[in-house]
Formats: sequence, C-alpha cells, structure tokens
Amino acid sequence: MTVSSIDQRVSLAVSTVIFALRPHPESGLMTLWLPLVRRIREPYEGMWALPGGPLEADEDLVASAQHTLERTTGLAPHYLEQLYAFGRVDRSPDDRVVSIVYWALVRQEEVARAVDGENVEWFVADDLPQLAFDHAQIVDYALARLRAKITYTPIAHAFLPPEFTLADLRAVHEAVLRTTLDPANFRRQALGTKTLVPTGTCLQGTSHRPPALFRFEAGAPSPAPEEHR
Amino acid sequence: MTVSSIDQRVSLAVSTVIFALRPHPESGLMTLWLPLVRRIREPYEGMWALPGGPLEADEDLVASAQHTLERTTGLAPHYLEQLYAFGRVDRSPDDRVVSIVYWALVRQEEVARAVDGENVEWFVADDLPQLAFDHAQIVDYALARLRAKITYTPIAHAFLPPEFTLADLRAVHEAVLRTTLDPANFRRQALGTKTLVPTGTCLQGTSHRPPALFRFEAGAPSPAPEEHR
Repeated sequence: MTVSSIDQRVSLAVSTVIFALRPHPESGLMTLWLPLVRRIREPYEGMWALPGGPLEADEDLVASAQHTLERTTGLAPHYLEQLYAFGRVDRSPDDRVVSIVYWALVRQEEVARAVDGENVEWFVADDLPQLAFDHAQIVDYALARLRAKITYTPIAHAFLPPEFTLADLRAVHEAVLRTTLDPANFRRQALGTKTLVPTGTCLQGTSHRPPALFRFEAGAPSPAPEEHR
Repeated sequence: MTVSSIDQRVSLAVSTVIFALRPHPESGLMTLWLPLVRRIREPYEGMWALPGGPLEADEDLVASAQHTLERTTGLAPHYLEQLYAFGRVDRSPDDRVVSIVYWALVRQEEVARAVDGENVEWFVADDLPQLAFDHAQIVDYALARLRAKITYTPIAHAFLPPEFTLADLRAVHEAVLRTTLDPANFRRQALGTKTLVPTGTCLQGTSHRPPALFRFEAGAPSPAPEEHR
C-alpha cells in the first residue's frame, strides 16, 4: 500500500493491557506487571509495545483481544473489558491508526501458567522502558482507571481465586494502590461494601485460628454489551 | 468502492448519543430525550439512527463527535465523553463498521438554544421508534450507564447550570431515574457526597424563604486522556 493511499484511510487495531500481580524483583512486594512485545518492524522497530494487532474484518473486537491474549501469554483471563479507544491523529507516524484497547486482569493462579509468546517480556507496570506510539499514555490511563475502580467496585476479585481471605483481598488492594492498609479498617470497609459472602469455611492447614474464606457476591451482569455474549 | 474490496476492510464511524431533559409530551414530567437522524440512503433508508458519520483521516475522535453534535443540534455541550466502541461483525448488513460512540449531556439552558439539523427529530429516550443497525442496543447501554453513573458520580451537574438548588438537583435525579425521591433523604445523601459547595447565596425572587444555591466542587480532572486536551 502506498503512502498516499494510506493517508486517505483510517486503520483499526485492537491492543491489550494485561495486568498481573507478581513480586517486585527488588522489594519482593506484590506489584503490578504487564507483558510487552518487542517490535520487529518499523515504526519503532526494537522498541516495546502493547500486545495487539490489526482488527480482522471477520473478527469481533473482543475476539481480537482474546487472540492477542492467547498469543502473548497463553492465557484466557476471566476479566477482559474494553478500556478506551485511542485515536489521536498523530499517534502513529506514518498512517492513521485508531486503537481500541482492552484490559485484562490475570488471576494469581493463572500467572504461573502464563507462557510467554515470541518477543514477549513482562515488566513492572510502574517502571517501564520507553514505549512505542502513545502506549505509555495508554498504560498510564489503564493504571489510573484500575486504581480508581478498585476503590469503588469489587474489581480486585479479578486477581483472586473464587475463595479468598480478607488478608488476600487486602494484599491485592495494597499491591494495586502501592500502599499499606490498616487490617482492621480494611476489614470494616470491605465487609461494609456488602459484596463479600462468607463461604462458611476457613483456610485449611494454617494456624490454630484459621482465617475465614469469602467469595464475591455475584453482582449485576456487566453492562458492557459485547464482551459477555 | 466495490463490494469485494469493502469485504476486506474495517471502516470506522463515530456516533453520538445526546441526552437532554425536556418535559414529557403526555405527563409533563421532566424526562430524557435524544435527537435522531432519519437515514436518507440504504441500508435502513427512512429509518431513524444516531447522529454520526465516518471518521475522517485527519480528524480526532472527539472532534468528529463535536462536529456531529454541532451539525445535529447546533450545540457544543460541556459534557462529551467516549462511551464505548461497538464492533460486532454483523452489526451492519453490507460492510464491517466499528462505531466509537460518544455521549453528550446537554445543560437545561442549552436545550432552548438547540437548532435541529436536517432530518433531525428529538424523541423520548425510553420510547424510541425502531432504530437502524444496533443503535437501539447502543441507546440502551447509554441509558444504563447514565442511570448507574448518576448514583455514584456527580454526573447530574452536566444537566444543570453552574449554580443550582437541591430541588433542581433532585429533579435531575428523578428525571433520569424515572422515580420520585424523598426530599429530606435526597438532601442528606447529596450533602453527604461532599461534592456540593454552598455558594452562600439564595435563589432570588422566590418565596420568603428562598432556597440556597450550590455548585459542584471541581473534582479531579477526568482521567479520559483525549477529550480534554
């Protein structure tokens, strides 16, 4: 395709921000990581970018994101939502590309099963190399959205197994928000949201006073119309 | 462009859902309205559709939405946000079109200034004719999002002038949620959100006990990265 014909057109890509919790390499504290793909062609050859690709004409948006996830990590996370469409005219140097960005949150038990795709490497989300295109801005937006959303929605469950302790839940909040939270205050607030249901069982094989297990109350279905058909 | 070349391609459109509050034609109660455009070509010729059009290669997404708004209503509402990208493979009968949908909320004092564009008519949002494409689904999603968001964000201010009484604010909530709210409970909850600031003045020229005026506290800037540059 010649440059002149590219100039007349808008291309559509689907990109993904994939967050998982892993220990920080220095502090050992749980922290947010995401996989990036090294670009093997211009523009930005050799630089790191969000996983993604052009939308195929016969592919739904969410299916495109799922394929990217599978190709990048070998995973099919439960939490996969549309984040935002990025479309600034100047965001790609040679052509006009609008990227519809999905974000995925990977459960802790899935992290160990992740298989890195070709040219894929995981990075600490708050300490990334320079990224291609406007992908640094996209990651900043995804981080801001995650950190806002965890304070008023039960999004933390996307990182947890179906049953978890209040300490597990607090650890997710602490990792995402990069802070320490008072256990008693956190417990009161978490139980106050009315989104937690005691399973009636306790974590086995731990102390003489094993912590209670909870699960999230199944809430209203996600209003996003196309992800969960 | 021939059908075969269309089949290989994905086109991008930007559509808008424009909500304003006006009295219901029968009950007289304030209710949500939106403008639709009658289609003058196939597919769905003669049917009503959301205002919008193809994204031009040299046009930012939000600029495209602003142009549609101007063309449809003559307005430039303060509240204009990206809602969602709709991209099901089968949503358009002859070609593949992904629509990035913006939504606008029109302030009450702007409604009177609206100038209908060609083939434009306003409808009660919950009582629409059959719409082209998947536009009924898009409107349903926008209504659900607005009704959810008004319960946990100060989005109602987008319908109000900069200074308003608690009765004004309650009237917006009642219109959006299609319900009546107890004034004392509403007052307590609204003041409890800590987003309202008394202006120190009262509504002039009314009763011997004029109601106090409030404005919204300027909150954190919207995290949406491209709307408010």
